[in-house]
Amino acid sequence: MRLKPRDNRFYDLFTTAAGNTLDGAVLMEEFLSVPQADRERVADRIKEVEHAGDDTTHEIMQALNTSFITPFDREDIAHLAGQLDDVLDALDDAAELTVLYRVDELPEAVKKQASILKEAAALTVEVMPRLRTLKDLEEYWISINDLENQADTVYRSLLAELFNDGGDAVRIIKLKEVIDQLEAAADAFEHVADVVQTIALKES
Amino acid sequence: MRLKPRDNRFYDLFTTAAGNTLDGAVLMEEFLSVPQADRERVADRIKEVEHAGDDTTHEIMQALNTSFITPFDREDIAHLAGQLDDVLDALDDAAELTVLYRVDELPEAVKKQASILKEAAALTVEVMPRLRTLKDLEEYWISINDLENQADTVYRSLLAELFNDGGDAVRIIKLKEVIDQLEAAADAFEHVADVVQTIALKES
Amino acid sequence: MRLKPRDNRFYDLFTTAAGNTLDGAVLMEEFLSVPQADRERVADRIKEVEHAGDDTTHEIMQALNTSFITPFDREDIAHLAGQLDDVLDALDDAAELTVLYRVDELPEAVKKQASILKEAAALTVEVMPRLRTLKDLEEYWISINDLENQADTVYRSLLAELFNDGGDAVRIIKLKEVIDQLEAAADAFEHVADVVQTIALKES
Repeated sequence: MRLKPRDNRFYDLFTTAAGNTLDGAVLMEEFLSVPQADRERVADRIKEVEHAGDDTTHEIMQALNTSFITPFDREDIAHLAGQLDDVLDALDDAAELTVLYRVDELPEAVKKQASILKEAAALTVEVMPRLRTLKDLEEYWISINDLENQADTVYRSLLAELFNDGGDAVRIIKLKEVIDQLEAAADAFEHVADVVQTIALKES
Repeated sequence: MRLKPRDNRFYDLFTTAAGNTLDGAVLMEEFLSVPQADRERVADRIKEVEHAGDDTTHEIMQALNTSFITPFDREDIAHLAGQLDDVLDALDDAAELTVLYRVDELPEAVKKQASILKEAAALTVEVMPRLRTLKDLEEYWISINDLENQADTVYRSLLAELFNDGGDAVRIIKLKEVIDQLEAAADAFEHVADVVQTIALKES
Repeated sequence: MRLKPRDNRFYDLFTTAAGNTLDGAVLMEEFLSVPQADRERVADRIKEVEHAGDDTTHEIMQALNTSFITPFDREDIAHLAGQLDDVLDALDDAAELTVLYRVDELPEAVKKQASILKEAAALTVEVMPRLRTLKDLEEYWISINDLENQADTVYRSLLAELFNDGGDAVRIIKLKEVIDQLEAAADAFEHVADVVQTIALKES
């Protein structure tokens, strides 16, 4: 006997939402490798993915607010949707600010930030269907935690490079905002893993 | 038959809270048009409105925590109060920082930010009593969404102007904090509209 | 007759969490008074306390997610744990950024920020066991509120000093991040007091 029905809608929507973050992370890698003149074009595609993400979030919240019974606690569903949405907001902001501020050369290590995000997104896509059974999640948590630690290290060394190399203050402010957004995306993936862990704990 | 009583206290308190944001937005327009020497005087009045807002928020939370039954979900009441409070915090911070940093000339477009905020506040005052019936909300959402898009465009062009005009770095940092706060106020009005939409969705 | 059992685990865990913030605040005072060369060593000890804080937060959340009945509303327990955790995150960030940015001299008034934090932490340690009875809380709220006002005044005057003394922009950015984190710790102590007040109001 199960008290909570397995409403497939939510699993499918979360898998779609995670897929959007992977699309965004792949485009972010492209964004960081094209010449400056092509950045706006890639930023527009990231914006499109961010809009698709908004639509998915909206569908999840609509499903949540109109469902009498949900497979997990309502607040956990809302948090999960919110954190996946935050990933794409951060990626979109990073790209948009880079274009808006007419940043020329980006520090090489931002590509490392993006590649970590792509790995985290791929793991998140993979784990979403497993919310059905809540089995075999251990490896996912360990990997996301490890990626978050890597992201932190890269971020700290980018800050040190930026602030201690005696560069121009305005350039420092611009670049800091961009790398802050990429770090915010990594944090959001970790928060996704925290919510998955909370859900698993409650069901155990 | 209604399961939830229509507790008028909440509607009245939310209308008061929205009225406070309109008072704040009107004062912000004044703040941005007076000579620098008069700013502190207007900032003090914004601070008073912010304190009035705190009192209203406190009354709402007190009513919430001591009511056995509420007209909407408790979390939605708390969010709505919190977002209306955030509007006034942001307006107060914008004024206080402008005075504290001894900012001289402000970019002309901050007045456009303030005028959008005044429009959003007026719409919010108007919609609060309609929480009783949750009817005719469509136009409110569309208008707030449209205003938020306008605010975003103004904000982005202010950032571009600020960062790409080769000005002094310290001045850029100061002005960015002020315009960030005005943008935060616009975001908070959009979040108010999101909560109203959530409430309407749950009741439909 | 009581409907809610007095689960001692939560009171003990919150007392431990508050104790961690006091350890952190005491170390922050030390951090701000040692020579620059010794800062990294003290920052490492703050990091250890922050990790201890993470463990306590994790224990609270685990107890929360596996308890069928809790002494307060679940959301209030989660908020309280989250705010105590935020104190240590902010202290850790302040120390880490000071080291990372190779800040030389810090403004004298940051020591005042730290001494206010230590007072707030001591009050918080003292109040946690009183969550059992929710009696004699008035003095705690008044004192925390008073300390938060003092912290705000110190913070504002630090900002004014920083921005209006015509210093180097990069140095301003670095120092602002450090004092922002100390101010965030003070805000988090106030949020702790807000949650305690919410809990008391619901039980009254």
